Amino acid sequence: MSSDRPAETHSVAPSQAFGTVFARLRPHMAALDRFLQGQIAAFEPEIRDMADYCIDTSGKRIRPALVFLSSWRDAASPAPDLVKAAAVVELVHLATLVHDDIMDGAEVRRSRRTATREYGATAAVLLGDALFSHALHLAAEFPTTEVCSVVAASTRKVCAGEIVQTLRRGSTRITREDYWRIIDLKTAELFRVSCFLGARLSGASSAYVDAAAAFGRHLGIAYQIYDDLVDFFGDEQRIGKTLGTDYTSGKITLPLLLLLAALPEAERLVLVEEICGRSPTQLELRLRQMGEHRIFGQVAAAVEQEIAAARAALAPWQQEPTSVLLLQLCDVLAGQVAGLQASNAQR
Amino acid sequence: MSSDRPAETHSVAPSQAFGTVFARLRPHMAALDRFLQGQIAAFEPEIRDMADYCIDTSGKRIRPALVFLSSWRDAASPAPDLVKAAAVVELVHLATLVHDDIMDGAEVRRSRRTATREYGATAAVLLGDALFSHALHLAAEFPTTEVCSVVAASTRKVCAGEIVQTLRRGSTRITREDYWRIIDLKTAELFRVSCFLGARLSGASSAYVDAAAAFGRHLGIAYQIYDDLVDFFGDEQRIGKTLGTDYTSGKITLPLLLLLAALPEAERLVLVEEICGRSPTQLELRLRQMGEHRIFGQVAAAVEQEIAAARAALAPWQQEPTSVLLLQLCDVLAGQVAGLQASNAQR
Repeated sequence: MSSDRPAETHSVAPSQAFGTVFARLRPHMAALDRFLQGQIAAFEPEIRDMADYCIDTSGKRIRPALVFLSSWRDAASPAPDLVKAAAVVELVHLATLVHDDIMDGAEVRRSRRTATREYGATAAVLLGDALFSHALHLAAEFPTTEVCSVVAASTRKVCAGEIVQTLRRGSTRITREDYWRIIDLKTAELFRVSCFLGARLSGASSAYVDAAAAFGRHLGIAYQIYDDLVDFFGDEQRIGKTLGTDYTSGKITLPLLLLLAALPEAERLVLVEEICGRSPTQLELRLRQMGEHRIFGQVAAAVEQEIAAARAALAPWQQEPTSVLLLQLCDVLAGQVAGLQASNAQR
Repeated sequence: MSSDRPAETHSVAPSQAFGTVFARLRPHMAALDRFLQGQIAAFEPEIRDMADYCIDTSGKRIRPALVFLSSWRDAASPAPDLVKAAAVVELVHLATLVHDDIMDGAEVRRSRRTATREYGATAAVLLGDALFSHALHLAAEFPTTEVCSVVAASTRKVCAGEIVQTLRRGSTRITREDYWRIIDLKTAELFRVSCFLGARLSGASSAYVDAAAAFGRHLGIAYQIYDDLVDFFGDEQRIGKTLGTDYTSGKITLPLLLLLAALPEAERLVLVEEICGRSPTQLELRLRQMGEHRIFGQVAAAVEQEIAAARAALAPWQQEPTSVLLLQLCDVLAGQVAGLQASNAQR
């Protein structure tokens, strides 16, 4: 897919773009860190240490980055309301991670023990709730109810997406449309809201706010498909987890969906049995079959298609300073997919 | 304790009071039912049936009752914003119940299978999140951010209370002050906010709003102590669960706390071992000892003390129509404690 869009058509090469985009946000992320650290005191004394533990500042912070980039004015420290909006989306995201880790029985995330491992599943459920409540409490500090409203609705959608994914686990009755719907809800929705809030709070026209939101949504879908690709084709050392965990836990993502469609019937039925947990998984075999059926290319094309949709959303405003920055994120993601493809070709 | 406040000092006897207070709210509760049923459609199609299952209309609805009573004008159908506020507090409460049942491993609540039993713990975590998100989304429909703000802060407190309780489970290092703090957060906070919202939305003076909130808080503490009393002294048939579940699950409530204090050292150490899960529980023995040490009376006195504090909060406004109704709830609760005492005396 990256051959469709050669790197030289962009002014900045992917790896450089990544550095360029995120380097600009250093003062913003520092302000966000300070703000989040300041929130610990707002939690009840008994749960402050736990909140501190969960308000982990080591993540990628893509959602706060989207808030800052879609409201970009200059490289100076961001306006306080943008920092607050970034904190709201990050806290919602952290809350969902705490709850995700309970469900997945995850012991480690970002090289640290998960909250569920540290405090037990029961406390982790409540801790996620407390983080989410606090996010909404911050959202209610804006002059109007709009931030609260969109963040609450968005969170409900994220949960709905996760519920559908959970209930489908171990089932192979899932279509490509189902997959898109799940990632649209569970991932793209919060990307969308991050861009919406940034554009909205910076006083952009409603047409631009809608365009930025649409951009965020498509970028979110693209990002999730990429993430699902990494689960099969990533570098275990770099991503810090075992490959194929989606497959071995019965979660069907696009690579597996495409493999199911590509395999001859008899082979397909064996894979179905594996996904349903009725026979042992065979990761090496499945990875080899994915190679034979050129699954990587098909998934990469799907990422590229969503990146194109994201670009298209901002096309009428591509000269806007915020658009220039947001569009660089498309280059970053396309570059990451290309890098993954290159490293897999070498193996 | 009920002898301290003989029934004849109240215009309405406890059992009658219960009927009188709640009968008035029939149109209000009907409006709330209709409103909540109407909310199902707001959930994503994939989780509508689950939301419908959780938005159970068979509960006691004490929190909505507090919203309606503290904003009481007349017996006509309540104003739409009060119905909405009642729905918000009830949805938050239902969300906490869904999460509570996961932690307790509860299979049945209100004679129905719990969400966690019906859909699995993973989906139940997310379903609770979705209910809570929707509550906040509704809260954001009010003209100002105040409802969102107080409900979000309140929910964080409820979670903090539950977390502390969870982490203390199986530990006997808990003081009377710890116990009060936990129930203040986990139960009284939402009672407080329900009264606050009702009074506030009805346009009451800020002094009255504060008084109603203080009333709600003390009533909530009283109610939780009563509930903890029922766990030891209730009628299994009527409460629909096994007696002593707090004790057998290592949760220290006031009756157990008082028994620990009353027992001779050697006996006390045995009970500590039981609570910590290191030796089998002996419910019959503990109930007999509670009888010998007159624990019921001491706990009932604590309920009465909080009821008195609730009454005192509204004392300057006791002739107000809303106050008259709210104060009847004190009679209802005092009557329930007296009823429990009478039925235990007969055994």
